[in-house]
Amino acid sequence: MKIALLGLGTVGRGVVEVINENKESIAKRAGQEVEIKYILDIRDFEGDPISTLVVKDFEIIVSDEEVEIVVEAMGGVEPAYTFAKASLSKGKSFVTSNKELVALHGAELLETARKNKVNFLFEASVGGGIPIIRPLNQSLTADEIYEITGILNGTTNFILTQMKEKGSAFEEVLKEAQALGYAEKNPEADVEGHDACRKIAILSSLAFGEHVNYQDIPTEGITKVTKEDMFYAESMGYVIKLLATCQKQDDSIFARVSPMLIPLTHPLAMVNDVFNAIFVKGNVIGEVMFYGRGAGKLPTASAVVADVVDAAKHKGTNIISFWNREKIELKDKGQVKATYFVRLEKNAESIAQRVKEVFGEVEEVKPLEGEYAFITQTETEIHFAQRLERVSDFKVISKIRIEK
Amino acid sequence: MKIALLGLGTVGRGVVEVINENKESIAKRAGQEVEIKYILDIRDFEGDPISTLVVKDFEIIVSDEEVEIVVEAMGGVEPAYTFAKASLSKGKSFVTSNKELVALHGAELLETARKNKVNFLFEASVGGGIPIIRPLNQSLTADEIYEITGILNGTTNFILTQMKEKGSAFEEVLKEAQALGYAEKNPEADVEGHDACRKIAILSSLAFGEHVNYQDIPTEGITKVTKEDMFYAESMGYVIKLLATCQKQDDSIFARVSPMLIPLTHPLAMVNDVFNAIFVKGNVIGEVMFYGRGAGKLPTASAVVADVVDAAKHKGTNIISFWNREKIELKDKGQVKATYFVRLEKNAESIAQRVKEVFGEVEEVKPLEGEYAFITQTETEIHFAQRLERVSDFKVISKIRIEK
Repeated sequence: MKIALLGLGTVGRGVVEVINENKESIAKRAGQEVEIKYILDIRDFEGDPISTLVVKDFEIIVSDEEVEIVVEAMGGVEPAYTFAKASLSKGKSFVTSNKELVALHGAELLETARKNKVNFLFEASVGGGIPIIRPLNQSLTADEIYEITGILNGTTNFILTQMKEKGSAFEEVLKEAQALGYAEKNPEADVEGHDACRKIAILSSLAFGEHVNYQDIPTEGITKVTKEDMFYAESMGYVIKLLATCQKQDDSIFARVSPMLIPLTHPLAMVNDVFNAIFVKGNVIGEVMFYGRGAGKLPTASAVVADVVDAAKHKGTNIISFWNREKIELKDKGQVKATYFVRLEKNAESIAQRVKEVFGEVEEVKPLEGEYAFITQTETEIHFAQRLERVSDFKVISKIRIEK
Repeated sequence: MKIALLGLGTVGRGVVEVINENKESIAKRAGQEVEIKYILDIRDFEGDPISTLVVKDFEIIVSDEEVEIVVEAMGGVEPAYTFAKASLSKGKSFVTSNKELVALHGAELLETARKNKVNFLFEASVGGGIPIIRPLNQSLTADEIYEITGILNGTTNFILTQMKEKGSAFEEVLKEAQALGYAEKNPEADVEGHDACRKIAILSSLAFGEHVNYQDIPTEGITKVTKEDMFYAESMGYVIKLLATCQKQDDSIFARVSPMLIPLTHPLAMVNDVFNAIFVKGNVIGEVMFYGRGAGKLPTASAVVADVVDAAKHKGTNIISFWNREKIELKDKGQVKATYFVRLEKNAESIAQRVKEVFGEVEEVKPLEGEYAFITQTETEIHFAQRLERVSDFKVISKIRIEK
């Protein structure tokens, strides 16, 4: 089985390594030897053993009938999308780790794959090496999934873990993460939640069978989380995590990415550092969780190569088909229910009384000096926002959703 | 797609429920409607809507060409084995949740399935609803697996969790578990580790591709774990879990079921009550963990029905094939390395000195009144046993393996 690799960056290098290192067992599982025939890259890699495989023109790959699987590890929507579309149309399976591509064009590319009796596979686009796409498609088939909640971004989870353990501020830990290579120079995609947003859009689309537009998902990052918030969390027996979630309630679906306070007894609470975990709830299975390294050269390559094996094994058969192009209208974000932990500046003794008048019965939390802190009742986001407006003479120091 | 169900006990009832409840989504995923044509049971179930499906003679099922998948939910090796062999030989896929059957005859039945181009599937035999068999076969295909360690028995995990949380003794919690239906009247298979042993035998066989005989796996249960052991564990920042493990080291493989002290930071440490979790390590993916309900009517039925869907989708194609009949010689258990936490009766002041002379540098643990407690260095089981023999003038109160 001849394959072509598009892009020899970190993930691409990992794919080459894995295919060489585990050649024998991969051949056994794929039912045939898997060999890289071409590597598309703008660089030459002179002196590198793989340099003989390098080509600069995608046409060579797409027009070579011997190439049955194209593996994309370039990132970015273009030219990945054009290459995917062309490969699938020519009857080649397409494997990618590219979440932007999948979140934006997944439904369409799955359809193209189906029409051409090949496969568009993207296990590595969510959760790095953690098997989640395949289990959703092939294992949880007896269930109606009604919730997926996950820690889907390793960078932010590392930062939150360090803030908790060292009592450091966000900016300080971010610098450390950048020095360690866990955060990029421009960390926006991670720390603002955009990366997690694309991933939960992919999972929601698979779970509910129709397209969830990632731009429709309310997304908050972790830049506003402070070490004082961490202190409160700890004193309450909670921990703060950046959670991406999609949930079906009655007949509507909502999705969200935001920092959340979760109790230490929650299985996601122990997911630390760069690890990811995805919690799935179904009407038969109850809850299951998948945990592992959400990024990195080898874990990601593990998922990519597993997709290659699956594509090789299923030549001529389409294996993923539950995400059609119809768009899901997500529930209005103001109508979603939430419970909040709120910190206000205590500039008057009457604050407890005022909060009670406006919010009804709240759960008071032992505050830091000069603050008043409480947990609201569960109600719609819009009602919460309106009540908060009514106490706007007290400055809001922070407000974080809490899972009780 | 017509299927037959053997046995209408708890799991069988679950299968009927799930197939009725999620009929539509199952049909979508299987590519066709799945319908139960027969239920084999010795009872009549008069008045029950399913009573019209009940047959008493397996011959009716195996000779009906319309039946393409046989689902076994009876338990026990016979007649399950005879029925499995007959079904597969007649070109019917066979789905089971029966760990005894799979641990004993898995390799042979997989071979029979392969020869007949049908499938022998057993996702529910390990970890209840948790997808683990299919991920091992279809997701972790780029990896060489070198370790699987899991909490594979919900009953013992419930007991250990309660002992920890309430400070109660084993016998007391066992009674409670029996009252709740979490433990059987005769709890031996669970509390002595036999159930976990069969499950790790299945996982080892799949991970390493050859047959691991469950009778070769050294197995210790939890009946000797005391509330004092729990107290020590907590004071050291550890927790005691019944772990089943198989590991490849150099070219040898060992497997074991035993109580273990694991640090609270270990991902398995937070797996409480009846939950199961399976930790897998591969040379590419690093570590992944699968977590969920390891037993129960619906979670088990979820896995069984997912297998039915897979068998329906893969009509004519064999999908599991990495467990051949050649037997793995497990490493001699005396040659496996371990680290122990040991409690001795302190009947002489010289005990610390004596332990040091015999065990070398040990890590002392703050003891309970009248005891001396320490953690050994890591060495082979046989050396540990020999040293313990040399201090036999001090009574051993307990010894538990510890993962540092």
